[in-house]
Amino acid sequence: MEKRAVIFDTDPGQDDAVAILTALASPELDVLGICTVAGNIPLDLTTKNALKLIELAGRTDVPVHAGCDRPLGRALVTAEHVHGETGLDGPDLPEPATGPGAGHATDFLIETVRAREPGTVTLMALGPLTNVALAFAKAPDIVSRLAGLVLMGGGCFEGGNITPAAEFNIYVDPEAAAMVFRSGVAITVLPLDVTHQMRSTKQRIDAFRALGNKAGEAVAAMLSFSERFDVEKYQSEGAPLHDPCVTAFVLDPSIFEGRQINVEIETGSALARGMTVADYWGVTDRPKNAFWVRSGDSDRFYQLLTERIGRLP
Amino acid sequence: MEKRAVIFDTDPGQDDAVAILTALASPELDVLGICTVAGNIPLDLTTKNALKLIELAGRTDVPVHAGCDRPLGRALVTAEHVHGETGLDGPDLPEPATGPGAGHATDFLIETVRAREPGTVTLMALGPLTNVALAFAKAPDIVSRLAGLVLMGGGCFEGGNITPAAEFNIYVDPEAAAMVFRSGVAITVLPLDVTHQMRSTKQRIDAFRALGNKAGEAVAAMLSFSERFDVEKYQSEGAPLHDPCVTAFVLDPSIFEGRQINVEIETGSALARGMTVADYWGVTDRPKNAFWVRSGDSDRFYQLLTERIGRLP
Amino acid sequence: MEKRAVIFDTDPGQDDAVAILTALASPELDVLGICTVAGNIPLDLTTKNALKLIELAGRTDVPVHAGCDRPLGRALVTAEHVHGETGLDGPDLPEPATGPGAGHATDFLIETVRAREPGTVTLMALGPLTNVALAFAKAPDIVSRLAGLVLMGGGCFEGGNITPAAEFNIYVDPEAAAMVFRSGVAITVLPLDVTHQMRSTKQRIDAFRALGNKAGEAVAAMLSFSERFDVEKYQSEGAPLHDPCVTAFVLDPSIFEGRQINVEIETGSALARGMTVADYWGVTDRPKNAFWVRSGDSDRFYQLLTERIGRLP
Amino acid sequence: MEKRAVIFDTDPGQDDAVAILTALASPELDVLGICTVAGNIPLDLTTKNALKLIELAGRTDVPVHAGCDRPLGRALVTAEHVHGETGLDGPDLPEPATGPGAGHATDFLIETVRAREPGTVTLMALGPLTNVALAFAKAPDIVSRLAGLVLMGGGCFEGGNITPAAEFNIYVDPEAAAMVFRSGVAITVLPLDVTHQMRSTKQRIDAFRALGNKAGEAVAAMLSFSERFDVEKYQSEGAPLHDPCVTAFVLDPSIFEGRQINVEIETGSALARGMTVADYWGVTDRPKNAFWVRSGDSDRFYQLLTERIGRLP
Repeated sequence: MEKRAVIFDTDPGQDDAVAILTALASPELDVLGICTVAGNIPLDLTTKNALKLIELAGRTDVPVHAGCDRPLGRALVTAEHVHGETGLDGPDLPEPATGPGAGHATDFLIETVRAREPGTVTLMALGPLTNVALAFAKAPDIVSRLAGLVLMGGGCFEGGNITPAAEFNIYVDPEAAAMVFRSGVAITVLPLDVTHQMRSTKQRIDAFRALGNKAGEAVAAMLSFSERFDVEKYQSEGAPLHDPCVTAFVLDPSIFEGRQINVEIETGSALARGMTVADYWGVTDRPKNAFWVRSGDSDRFYQLLTERIGRLP
Repeated sequence: MEKRAVIFDTDPGQDDAVAILTALASPELDVLGICTVAGNIPLDLTTKNALKLIELAGRTDVPVHAGCDRPLGRALVTAEHVHGETGLDGPDLPEPATGPGAGHATDFLIETVRAREPGTVTLMALGPLTNVALAFAKAPDIVSRLAGLVLMGGGCFEGGNITPAAEFNIYVDPEAAAMVFRSGVAITVLPLDVTHQMRSTKQRIDAFRALGNKAGEAVAAMLSFSERFDVEKYQSEGAPLHDPCVTAFVLDPSIFEGRQINVEIETGSALARGMTVADYWGVTDRPKNAFWVRSGDSDRFYQLLTERIGRLP
Repeated sequence: MEKRAVIFDTDPGQDDAVAILTALASPELDVLGICTVAGNIPLDLTTKNALKLIELAGRTDVPVHAGCDRPLGRALVTAEHVHGETGLDGPDLPEPATGPGAGHATDFLIETVRAREPGTVTLMALGPLTNVALAFAKAPDIVSRLAGLVLMGGGCFEGGNITPAAEFNIYVDPEAAAMVFRSGVAITVLPLDVTHQMRSTKQRIDAFRALGNKAGEAVAAMLSFSERFDVEKYQSEGAPLHDPCVTAFVLDPSIFEGRQINVEIETGSALARGMTVADYWGVTDRPKNAFWVRSGDSDRFYQLLTERIGRLP
Repeated sequence: MEKRAVIFDTDPGQDDAVAILTALASPELDVLGICTVAGNIPLDLTTKNALKLIELAGRTDVPVHAGCDRPLGRALVTAEHVHGETGLDGPDLPEPATGPGAGHATDFLIETVRAREPGTVTLMALGPLTNVALAFAKAPDIVSRLAGLVLMGGGCFEGGNITPAAEFNIYVDPEAAAMVFRSGVAITVLPLDVTHQMRSTKQRIDAFRALGNKAGEAVAAMLSFSERFDVEKYQSEGAPLHDPCVTAFVLDPSIFEGRQINVEIETGSALARGMTVADYWGVTDRPKNAFWVRSGDSDRFYQLLTERIGRLP
């Protein structure tokens, strides 16, 4: 089987961690590298967390490169209230023994994509789109060389989670998001609309713990920690699970449903900054620039994640 | 029983018509008058349609006053593609024999509210909020004299119906809506979130027709006409029914569920103009200025409407 | 000689006062009435000040009507730091013996314009455009009945005086200004560009005082007070004199130079709210909707004012 | 004498050309390199033009690096209507014999600044700020390593030249400009306010031609071409001369006057996009982030330019 080459751009984050671990455990995927960006927590922590994850997965062959330490046009907003001070609060992971690669994440991204056959590398973006926008600005040629960009961000049918109109990843760097959505790259969006259907119930968390391996225990501990905030906020059983939807979509798109629509990013308005203005009902003539995932099968989703995490040490 | 005094501000429109007819048929309500505004169609037609409705209901004692013929800050946008050229396409209603009252709708509104005991008049707004904003600007004292303002408009969990971010009523005059939402009046919002749960299925339309009276026949004909557009758009059985939610809420709020939240109106952004930025999840500290109706029981809703329409000639 | 009929809409303010006194002293003008609006100071004070002025001029035949007590879309911003607590700090004017007329200023404006021949009444606006916008919204027919609207507001070549981008009158109610500039009325704008050329030097203030009448003494005292703030700010000899440019333009346009251009009002941007985006160099194809006065002869301007104030008691 | 190290970021353009030639001719300056960016014309032409200029000046030792081929967040807007199809219309310069350096302009900028002592390199920006913003985003450490950024852009007292509110360089990439003005770098702005005082009269153009060298002839031909558009637009004798103000300021700031103020960049508003909101009168408490040049001595300015151009081949 030919493996599908993927690169992560990420700000781990517990849910980023589950997305990355799932990919590292999946034989269908060849994870070429992990680019880190400031988002849920500052860049030095997202980079450290990425290193922790490849060590937990026994995959120190995967290079990690640090990218932008702040959004393009704004002061950094972080979310320690959700993720804890380390960004990976929950499990007790050891300090990483390795360090990040020497070059800037955007140069790693550009060079890796240029070195591969056109149309063979998929970019999976789990955080603010700062690195992606910067790479596209410096090297517009990689836009059409990518097989696609699959990202977690935005929302249309759920209300925002950081402001009433905006989801965190897009809100943190709306200018970057606007650049990416206008770039012409083939985009798939996993928005709050679908991630809120993937509730981390006690039963589902227990299933990770029951795997008996280190990774399963870590995932269970991470999800137990990070769900606290949302369970109280939404008064629901289990919290939404965001970033792993990206990996699951790449592994098995049949779990999800959606359609090709126009998505624009609001950057100017104080009230709606960072909003993904998604024309799901087709009320405009704007060009369709993204595949918008509207729903998914949460049982199949968690089964996939659990099965994959079970393959790790 | 003491009747509840209400005033309509409206741009009929088939769904406005059902809302008004339901109120005129309800013994709990004392409809003090109907103010017309440009919206679904131009002002001369909304005024004519209001007159047709009071004549259909045999209630020519209810005064009709024409108000603003255009939004405060924009060119008028209309919706003949939904409502037909007359705004009441569907039934064959006779030309009205009566005419509107002499004064401007805003003066009728101001004088009527001032003439009544404070806290006794409820304003029911079914169209763009132009008249309401103008009246509040000219006579700020009526804001606290109103028992409340119950309006159809906006949305948070459905996407917009005129742009991806905006619902028609608010979109047509966002400046007016912003003035009203900042005014301090006690607001209840019936947004797309709930009106999209009230589908005008064939069975429900048939129930109106089966009433055997003129009003039932007219309502069935109006709903059959106006649902065409939405049924195709949303690929659903039956179209959303909007404005009658306002009357139903005033008659029986137990049909609905919602919560008190902050709502701001976007006026500046080209992408999000007319959006109701609704903080349903409480992610901001903005003051709570509106009761946002999130859901409703569609069977009880249609039962109420049908029973009331059945009381008319 | 046929007198030219004018109506003031104003928020006095020392410079409003000089503009009004000059008009009351001018045989060419028939001042039909004075509408007051909240602006430099709250509405009750602007109304009281208007009454003080007609009494000072011995012209209690001129009706005063109070209008809007707040801007259309925002909380009121006032400028006591410039005008003092009364808005007319400087001279010691007696409390007015008369009171305002009974109707709302906008109704007075609408009815007066409707009662006169079309094209015979000029509206002179010296404050925020709230009343004007409201009157146009309620009675769009008066827009084409007016001979024109001459207003003080905005700027293009001077920087703003309340924010870097905005002049006070427009800033206080940009939504109203936007409505007025889009209304189609024939507009003449006296912006900061020209009012900053009309410096109230000591010599010019002394000339008012030397007139020897009560009005001259009052004008000298008002200008001495109000110039303090600007002289320090701009480090200039004498302060700009704003609103009297409106009266002077109506009396003798040959004092001024300008051209017909497009002017749009910024309402949405936090940075540029209330800016008059004036296309003086013709870099757009937008329709020309205002005569923009760019410069004036300050000696002739002050000579005209002084001569007229000298005719008062 | 210790030379001052400078790097150009530029989109030549005739006025860019004069700015660069003046610098190359100045013994006080050590031009470390020229970064090109899309702006007046597409990137391939600005790069070619930069090469033509170093060859004209006999300075092929100065490296040229191509940067971004489009703005960060928008489609590229160019100005061939001003500069002609080549961007250097006017003189008949030979096709360049050399080519640009291999690396991206932003990497050249980052590496050059990092390789020098902190506080020793001045960046002179003559076009849209795309490259500068990108470099700052990738390498925030260079912001404080720069001695300063001197740029041509914006305006406060002149009206815009591409829209009523915006100057071309800032308008083309307002998102980049906003990033740069918020970056903390020490900025000096040469806005339209001063460049419009530097009129390229016939006498001044003749003086370049009279120098008798190739460069003088080229400069005269360039200015004769590029002034056509503005002379007609402003109905003035001679056109404004923009970018050479940057070089002149670096060479002799005593020619100019200005003050330290706050400058913000408008990005969201359709009307005011790309506006430099300059608080010249200190009406806000915003932090002072730029030295704003308000005026200059045009005779000394042209004497300096002429003298320097005379030193070239």
